[in-house]
Amino acid sequence: MSRTVIHGGLVITASDEIHADVLVEGGRVAALAAHGTAAAGSWTADRSIDATGKYVIPGGVDAHTHMEMPFGGTSAADTFETGTRAAAWGGTTTIIDFAVQSVGGSLRGGLDAWYAKADGNCAVDYAFHMILADVNESSLKEMDLLVSEGVTSFKLFMAYPGVFYSDDGQILRAMQRAGGNGGLIMMHAENGIAIDVLVEQALAAGRTDPRYHGDVRKVALEAEATHRAVQLARVAGAPLYVVHVSADEAVAEIAAARHKGLPVFGETCPQYLFLSTDNLAEPGFEGAKYVCSTPLRPREHQEALWRGLRNDELQVVSTDHCPFCFSGQKELGRGDFSKIPNGLPGVENRMDLLHQAVVEGHISRRRWIDIACAAPARMFGLYPKKGTIAPGADADIVVYDPHAEQVISARTHHMNVDYSAYEGKHLTGRVETVLSRGVPVIDRHTYVGRAGHGAYLPRGTCQFTR
Amino acid sequence: MSRTVIHGGLVITASDEIHADVLVEGGRVAALAAHGTAAAGSWTADRSIDATGKYVIPGGVDAHTHMEMPFGGTSAADTFETGTRAAAWGGTTTIIDFAVQSVGGSLRGGLDAWYAKADGNCAVDYAFHMILADVNESSLKEMDLLVSEGVTSFKLFMAYPGVFYSDDGQILRAMQRAGGNGGLIMMHAENGIAIDVLVEQALAAGRTDPRYHGDVRKVALEAEATHRAVQLARVAGAPLYVVHVSADEAVAEIAAARHKGLPVFGETCPQYLFLSTDNLAEPGFEGAKYVCSTPLRPREHQEALWRGLRNDELQVVSTDHCPFCFSGQKELGRGDFSKIPNGLPGVENRMDLLHQAVVEGHISRRRWIDIACAAPARMFGLYPKKGTIAPGADADIVVYDPHAEQVISARTHHMNVDYSAYEGKHLTGRVETVLSRGVPVIDRHTYVGRAGHGAYLPRGTCQFTR
Amino acid sequence: MSRTVIHGGLVITASDEIHADVLVEGGRVAALAAHGTAAAGSWTADRSIDATGKYVIPGGVDAHTHMEMPFGGTSAADTFETGTRAAAWGGTTTIIDFAVQSVGGSLRGGLDAWYAKADGNCAVDYAFHMILADVNESSLKEMDLLVSEGVTSFKLFMAYPGVFYSDDGQILRAMQRAGGNGGLIMMHAENGIAIDVLVEQALAAGRTDPRYHGDVRKVALEAEATHRAVQLARVAGAPLYVVHVSADEAVAEIAAARHKGLPVFGETCPQYLFLSTDNLAEPGFEGAKYVCSTPLRPREHQEALWRGLRNDELQVVSTDHCPFCFSGQKELGRGDFSKIPNGLPGVENRMDLLHQAVVEGHISRRRWIDIACAAPARMFGLYPKKGTIAPGADADIVVYDPHAEQVISARTHHMNVDYSAYEGKHLTGRVETVLSRGVPVIDRHTYVGRAGHGAYLPRGTCQFTR
Amino acid sequence: MSRTVIHGGLVITASDEIHADVLVEGGRVAALAAHGTAAAGSWTADRSIDATGKYVIPGGVDAHTHMEMPFGGTSAADTFETGTRAAAWGGTTTIIDFAVQSVGGSLRGGLDAWYAKADGNCAVDYAFHMILADVNESSLKEMDLLVSEGVTSFKLFMAYPGVFYSDDGQILRAMQRAGGNGGLIMMHAENGIAIDVLVEQALAAGRTDPRYHGDVRKVALEAEATHRAVQLARVAGAPLYVVHVSADEAVAEIAAARHKGLPVFGETCPQYLFLSTDNLAEPGFEGAKYVCSTPLRPREHQEALWRGLRNDELQVVSTDHCPFCFSGQKELGRGDFSKIPNGLPGVENRMDLLHQAVVEGHISRRRWIDIACAAPARMFGLYPKKGTIAPGADADIVVYDPHAEQVISARTHHMNVDYSAYEGKHLTGRVETVLSRGVPVIDRHTYVGRAGHGAYLPRGTCQFTR
Repeated sequence: MSRTVIHGGLVITASDEIHADVLVEGGRVAALAAHGTAAAGSWTADRSIDATGKYVIPGGVDAHTHMEMPFGGTSAADTFETGTRAAAWGGTTTIIDFAVQSVGGSLRGGLDAWYAKADGNCAVDYAFHMILADVNESSLKEMDLLVSEGVTSFKLFMAYPGVFYSDDGQILRAMQRAGGNGGLIMMHAENGIAIDVLVEQALAAGRTDPRYHGDVRKVALEAEATHRAVQLARVAGAPLYVVHVSADEAVAEIAAARHKGLPVFGETCPQYLFLSTDNLAEPGFEGAKYVCSTPLRPREHQEALWRGLRNDELQVVSTDHCPFCFSGQKELGRGDFSKIPNGLPGVENRMDLLHQAVVEGHISRRRWIDIACAAPARMFGLYPKKGTIAPGADADIVVYDPHAEQVISARTHHMNVDYSAYEGKHLTGRVETVLSRGVPVIDRHTYVGRAGHGAYLPRGTCQFTR
Repeated sequence: MSRTVIHGGLVITASDEIHADVLVEGGRVAALAAHGTAAAGSWTADRSIDATGKYVIPGGVDAHTHMEMPFGGTSAADTFETGTRAAAWGGTTTIIDFAVQSVGGSLRGGLDAWYAKADGNCAVDYAFHMILADVNESSLKEMDLLVSEGVTSFKLFMAYPGVFYSDDGQILRAMQRAGGNGGLIMMHAENGIAIDVLVEQALAAGRTDPRYHGDVRKVALEAEATHRAVQLARVAGAPLYVVHVSADEAVAEIAAARHKGLPVFGETCPQYLFLSTDNLAEPGFEGAKYVCSTPLRPREHQEALWRGLRNDELQVVSTDHCPFCFSGQKELGRGDFSKIPNGLPGVENRMDLLHQAVVEGHISRRRWIDIACAAPARMFGLYPKKGTIAPGADADIVVYDPHAEQVISARTHHMNVDYSAYEGKHLTGRVETVLSRGVPVIDRHTYVGRAGHGAYLPRGTCQFTR
Repeated sequence: MSRTVIHGGLVITASDEIHADVLVEGGRVAALAAHGTAAAGSWTADRSIDATGKYVIPGGVDAHTHMEMPFGGTSAADTFETGTRAAAWGGTTTIIDFAVQSVGGSLRGGLDAWYAKADGNCAVDYAFHMILADVNESSLKEMDLLVSEGVTSFKLFMAYPGVFYSDDGQILRAMQRAGGNGGLIMMHAENGIAIDVLVEQALAAGRTDPRYHGDVRKVALEAEATHRAVQLARVAGAPLYVVHVSADEAVAEIAAARHKGLPVFGETCPQYLFLSTDNLAEPGFEGAKYVCSTPLRPREHQEALWRGLRNDELQVVSTDHCPFCFSGQKELGRGDFSKIPNGLPGVENRMDLLHQAVVEGHISRRRWIDIACAAPARMFGLYPKKGTIAPGADADIVVYDPHAEQVISARTHHMNVDYSAYEGKHLTGRVETVLSRGVPVIDRHTYVGRAGHGAYLPRGTCQFTR
Repeated sequence: MSRTVIHGGLVITASDEIHADVLVEGGRVAALAAHGTAAAGSWTADRSIDATGKYVIPGGVDAHTHMEMPFGGTSAADTFETGTRAAAWGGTTTIIDFAVQSVGGSLRGGLDAWYAKADGNCAVDYAFHMILADVNESSLKEMDLLVSEGVTSFKLFMAYPGVFYSDDGQILRAMQRAGGNGGLIMMHAENGIAIDVLVEQALAAGRTDPRYHGDVRKVALEAEATHRAVQLARVAGAPLYVVHVSADEAVAEIAAARHKGLPVFGETCPQYLFLSTDNLAEPGFEGAKYVCSTPLRPREHQEALWRGLRNDELQVVSTDHCPFCFSGQKELGRGDFSKIPNGLPGVENRMDLLHQAVVEGHISRRRWIDIACAAPARMFGLYPKKGTIAPGADADIVVYDPHAEQVISARTHHMNVDYSAYEGKHLTGRVETVLSRGVPVIDRHTYVGRAGHGAYLPRGTCQFTR
């Protein structure tokens, strides 16, 4: 059994900062020992990694990615191969992607299709949520089965009528089912019915530029849907996880629900923390690069999101990674913002951007690890295998240099997309080495992994509701 | 250097549950290794503790005790010797007691007096907060000095006019000073000026029984003072820690402040979580046993406290241990509830009662360790020495049997007081063995410690505000 | 020109209580003069009414009635003739009924049908709101026309899918149109999509009794829809009037919107103020008598409604008069509560029940007149013709005996329905005499009116938004 | 008995707008008759006032003035003679001034002193509130007596320690007494204890300019005191009227209390609606003109005040008229803002400024009359004699030209003070003629009144709490 020692670093978990060496045996963390102790000194290993002056952190868990996702007549540009490789470059060692039920199709069918896409192609471990695009008696029954085999979370959309949209009755039924089988409902909370009216009116009025995408998808309509989802979950007696929260009023709805003791959780994404409608309004068609839904908000919403993350009103930061090339993909929406494929690349940048937030004082180091590793793992039933560094956990470990400087750029990133939403942004902190189950994937800034190393992860149920 | 191995148990921290053996070397945690690993198997030790089927948890940190505290013409019945021994029996290995400035006296004088009381007498480690009873130019200056030497938190009273009371100007000045020197203001938040009017009126009307103690110290007046303290802290730009929060409306004030992003923290105590005005209304003079301030509240307030603890609206559970014997002490208030010494015994019961809350589903195991160990250690600058089990931490470790049954009783407890507030209460879970810096204090239900083992702990500043 | 003097009474308006004689000339109030003044003494009149010891109040304005309303395969039992006669008996001299657009039909068609039903049949004056059952380009355009001719308010339903239901896009469009043309959107705020799921589940589970009607139409789903309607109105930039508010949480949503400065208004009904789920749970099939939507709520909601009325969080009390006989109509729902026609009789009882609220201390006398007369008149553009007693106003005047005792009963009421929701209720206060535009309709407890006296009232736009 | 007819105008009350002639007989309104009716035509009168194209409104009730008020070693510059004359010029026909208890003195003594100042000197009617500067057993007992003789409201100060300040115990006792005797507690809600610390610090730091007056009297400390007053009133079971509310957060506290159903009321003043910290920061020592407490706030607070007035979260607009000449009085505070006498002139400008708010769309005409006439009269037990135009009411009537233009200036105003806080402000609307109990005081812009016409008004208790 192969043994690796990572010595000299500062191990950071969601609650602890430990000056300890880490011993990895056969893919798992075997032991932690304080620097310089006899216990640490006694370890022999096949591989020794010097982490002196570095952080030793759990591999990131990105609970919201869309590899090879068909959307608006095209597909997200990252395959599971390119996307998970980029994830590894960025210190993320687990992704949870979304399998999609087709309308009229079964959950099983959708899941099998996604298994097939990912199988043998991933650089790091992966799991699946299930998008419910067609809630009916049959798909409701299938939910039970999926939970039992490790697909324990189900995404519903209050937006995108005619595509993924579920009406409130379907939502209520799915929530009731989840309330019974332990599943967690993930909600895209925007009033898509109302938004589509505004889209139609905007286009009819000649407001076709990317920035109108942000204009029509109003804060009030995100807050509305968030409130509605909370009330439906309350009626159903089910927990609720709201994805990609972007608006201050939506944070307030989640905070109010939590204050009442309801099991409601919130996720935001780096784009809402670092970008704004200023980007959507960039001249020419540049704004298209920043088109995603929920949309970017005016800059002043950012503080509410940071505050929500500090106060545990929001628990998780995922990327909603869904990259479309500017050339050939985003361009589909020239002259009609509603035809711009929705989504941003980000799986490679999340851990770094959140470390930057540590540097800038928005969050503590431990909270960084919590929202990026531990909380998503617990939220989606991967804990304690993933999300922490502790004896028994999978040895998904990142050696992170907190002092290295880098500049984000499409020229240097590893995602399969021709632009970066953060082009030119200076960051302090950089991933140096990444282990996935003890196996090096990134070794001192060199990719040493391989497609197929990443394994499928059946998941347990949400650990936040126990 | 003495080595101890605790093997076979489930190590629980604020964020992790780890099936690991723990190696202690020379008073500190040296290493954790997963059960059955080669690393664990290689350890040799002078002492081996079998924790199979048990929890291995950090020693409790009780951030609010009053040993030998003079109050109302008498003194709290536990000395530092008896009180810290009882703490050890209950799995608490650190207390933070309150040194008291006398009116007209210096902080230094008060602190020296308390050092003298504790020195050489404690079974477990101890630290001090400072009660500011006389805020003036001189004592404000002394605050800086105390912070620099490790007394980093200062308690003020909005109650008890003529004794500990500070007016809003004194509070504001002390908060401003703390805002500058890193100190943390702890607040007894009750409008004592208004309460004293109600006390006088109650007594004049012949309402002299213990239950009127709860009647006059109104929920609205705790909520009022909490709101006022928050606003003063906001003006001063200082963090605030509200002690012994008992009323739902006070929790709501703290939650509202936190939602706005203010660095406001809250503590509650087991008595508010498990007891109620029903106890204060017990027949005869029995209610006197439950007289403390803030007072016990109607039972329906408990849910707000539990919810606050789950939602991180409240961060810490301390005891406010301040025991007075029923006979000879509580009895001073027969015929006049205002003469009943304020305070309950509890330092021995906290860890068990909070484990009972785990059993009853109020909180998770990790949250138990968080509110009882990790959060108080972080709040008061003792982390990571105290409050967790991780390489490098002090080996303050409790082997806790989660299945043992016990019944609380004054006949069997070890606090120096002739009654228990929880007499006859059945609990599941019991402390089995306790180490303090690696040294056994309780060994399989036998006290093996000694007065003087406990060491004074200078503290850093609050780690919740960074 | 006929002249009437009403002398000796206490004239009560929304803001004043005046010891004055009232002179009516030719259908209008010509003058008020203080009792005993030379001015009063100089009046000669054809008819003199002695109101000594009585109140002289404006005729009631019931802004929410459904005469001859088709619903669930039957029709409301009161015709315009019987219903307006009953209204007069109860001191109400203006009703605003709802014309209904049929699905696929025009507004004009619906309005014409309702004109035809009412024309020549009414004992007191009447006006129409328009129910939008089919919001589309054509009906949106018709809204402008209707506003210009005096039908200035439009009701939408978030409940009753397949019947009156509009989706959020239709609602948004109608609100936008109203925002432009001065119309007022009235909203039935219940999430009918979710409710229908619960109805289906209840019936499938054998929960078929009337009380389950209250069970499935949950408070959370009224609050949800209220919040949603507010957000949509905010996006549309339009005012909103929420009909038949019954739940405390819905009042809270309206209050929150108003505190933000949004032009949001609320109506409740006597049944929510005086009845509760206790009535729905009456044994046998008796509960069917109380089936209406929104449903009756647990008794504790009543206080929130009274408080809302006192605080102007709610502005109007209407009846939602929609009577179905127990025999032959309500009975359609035996064995299936969802088949019980929704609605209660009440047009005759409103003024008396609200006077009882004065007697019981819930509201002041002036607030009684405000919520029952002045506010509905102003809300729906009938002021100052209706809703007050002032020179120039229509002489719709009620002489009300505040000391008379009565017992409500189906045996003595004048509504065309075989039961009373308030059977046996003792009231203090009773209508004695009623004038409609100066013409006696009730003369000392005798009906002296006639079908056809009542005239159609074109209305101006909402006067609360100016 | 003298008879006056005011014909052709639009009579506006808090709830009605009536095209009516008004007949005045012997000091009271005898009758209103619609223009052109036989009733109106039959009136003969000694004096006829043509109000065609004008408003006929109730004389204003200014519930908060300080004539000849000693403050900070000087006295408010208006005597009862000059101040009430200026009031009349501005359309205000009733003032309620504050008699002051001296520390150590009796209420009776203070009241007698103020009676003496006013007696025989007033141009319009006047009443008194009582300032409690020394709450003790004796003064508490006197409160009952004062209520019984018509001084039914009592002002307390949470600010100005050492001058008017009452501690929370005194406040609670006074509130309890008012709860029992029907009195209304008026509260100056600012945490003066904390403010005085900030004042001292500001001066010590050389921040002596007038604008620092606004800086130290922080929004948070007004909100704090408002919340505290509400909680104390709740404990006492007494109603509360908060004077001169200036901060958005204070409005929010009042709104929250009202939403809970507490009898809490709020007053604001024109200076908070039209002026801001921009004025306090005017160059040189000009800012001194705007020094009052509570202080002017940043401009963005104004919208919260207007919204509060529209929503009935605030009920009354008074002036807090307390004029000090710039020369010789305000100048006392050169080099030390804390020595600037607190107060602004305004009794002459209130009705006009609030009409300007009608012109600018902040409030409706009826709400203008409500907040300026009817509500203060009802709040302080003067209704229906004052505050409305209705048969039986005192004939305090203003003929107001809504189209006249004027420019406010110290050169033309009639207050005995050498500057105007609104110098140069253009207004639309102007008082033309004023009757006090039927007697002309201002006749077409000419003062025709006399000192001594104004009569003392004993008052009933608050009519908002019934």
